[in-house]
Amino acid sequence: MNLKIVKSVLEESDRLARENHNILLEKGVFAINLMSAPGSGKTTILKKTIPRLQALNIRSAVIEGDITSTLDSEQFQPLGIQVIQVNTEPFGGDCHIGSHFIRSALDMLDLDTVDVLFIENVGNLVCPAEFDIGEDRKVVVLSLPEGRDKPLKYPLMFRVCNLCLLNKIDLASVLEESIQSYHDNIRTINGGLAVLPVSGKTEEGLKEWIKWITNQRRRECRSKV
Amino acid sequence: MNLKIVKSVLEESDRLARENHNILLEKGVFAINLMSAPGSGKTTILKKTIPRLQALNIRSAVIEGDITSTLDSEQFQPLGIQVIQVNTEPFGGDCHIGSHFIRSALDMLDLDTVDVLFIENVGNLVCPAEFDIGEDRKVVVLSLPEGRDKPLKYPLMFRVCNLCLLNKIDLASVLEESIQSYHDNIRTINGGLAVLPVSGKTEEGLKEWIKWITNQRRRECRSKV
Repeated sequence: MNLKIVKSVLEESDRLARENHNILLEKGVFAINLMSAPGSGKTTILKKTIPRLQALNIRSAVIEGDITSTLDSEQFQPLGIQVIQVNTEPFGGDCHIGSHFIRSALDMLDLDTVDVLFIENVGNLVCPAEFDIGEDRKVVVLSLPEGRDKPLKYPLMFRVCNLCLLNKIDLASVLEESIQSYHDNIRTINGGLAVLPVSGKTEEGLKEWIKWITNQRRRECRSKV
Repeated sequence: MNLKIVKSVLEESDRLARENHNILLEKGVFAINLMSAPGSGKTTILKKTIPRLQALNIRSAVIEGDITSTLDSEQFQPLGIQVIQVNTEPFGGDCHIGSHFIRSALDMLDLDTVDVLFIENVGNLVCPAEFDIGEDRKVVVLSLPEGRDKPLKYPLMFRVCNLCLLNKIDLASVLEESIQSYHDNIRTINGGLAVLPVSGKTEEGLKEWIKWITNQRRRECRSKV
């Protein structure tokens, strides 16, 4: 009996994910689900990414997932884009953005003026990896201070993603870490996972990240024109 | 109907937590539930803490929670202590150590030779905060690279804990962060939360952390002699 209920919750989640995907497809919106541990630098990367896309006439929107607060959303205000804050409270707060939250957020966005939708998930290397929410691509951000062992300890996240942004590479020398050791551990878990070393702070590697986004979007034939 | 089932799961979790607590009480073991985001430095801190307690004739054991792998457990081998690895796989992996896992682990430990039990929870700032597992104290580790905003974004964790170890303070100047700003945000969420700035790397602040452990243990009257 219990199992049946769990199953139906998961089925409902998947059904809504497919619904989200169909809406995005119809509106020609390419969606990226950005996931990571807390503090890996997702928001900083997005703040530097969106103006670079604007320069290419690619219009972004953001669904910002947090347990509580609008701290991250507020950071996007200067960019003049559409931002939907999803707060997963109450209780301790949902540890990921469920597809039902995305479904509501899509209704609130004017998708006709959006080319790329970034979904910044709740900072958590575990639960967000377990749920499809209707996105086109899943991207994990791993920052150097978190340690090279994280792919080995949170393997599902590194198995389900299409790209890993290895962030805060500007700290490599201070942390006395070799970037290669992160590559090696990622490869142990998922040999096919593309890895881009970047720095949200110095903007190193962001050109390659923008190229990845535009290529993947083209591959999904999501250009509106 | 669904609600009833959820409630019974939570009730069972709490019942086992009380059972764990009674076992620890009977055996005179003081238990600390150590929680944080992935990569905040829990394992490094424990590796530096346990020998310092040994020097005071205080014997430690560790229950190590990870989705998968024994990477962290292996690091305790040179210390010659009892370590129980809890792996929360399969599926994506449970995002916290449930009290049922602790119940099983307690059966596997020789508690007569343990004074302090450290439970290193799964790296996650959300879910572990929601569950009592029978511990005496909850401690959150927040490392500087995660960002000063984390208490505001993951408030429950900072509300339920008895102490915050502010780790990696050796990186303050490189990150251009003021430690005070972390204190301020923690105080916004929980004015009563004790905060100890530490560095697992340089061992700064560890003396105060050891003093905190021994004081709290004394307060709970858990000395075996």
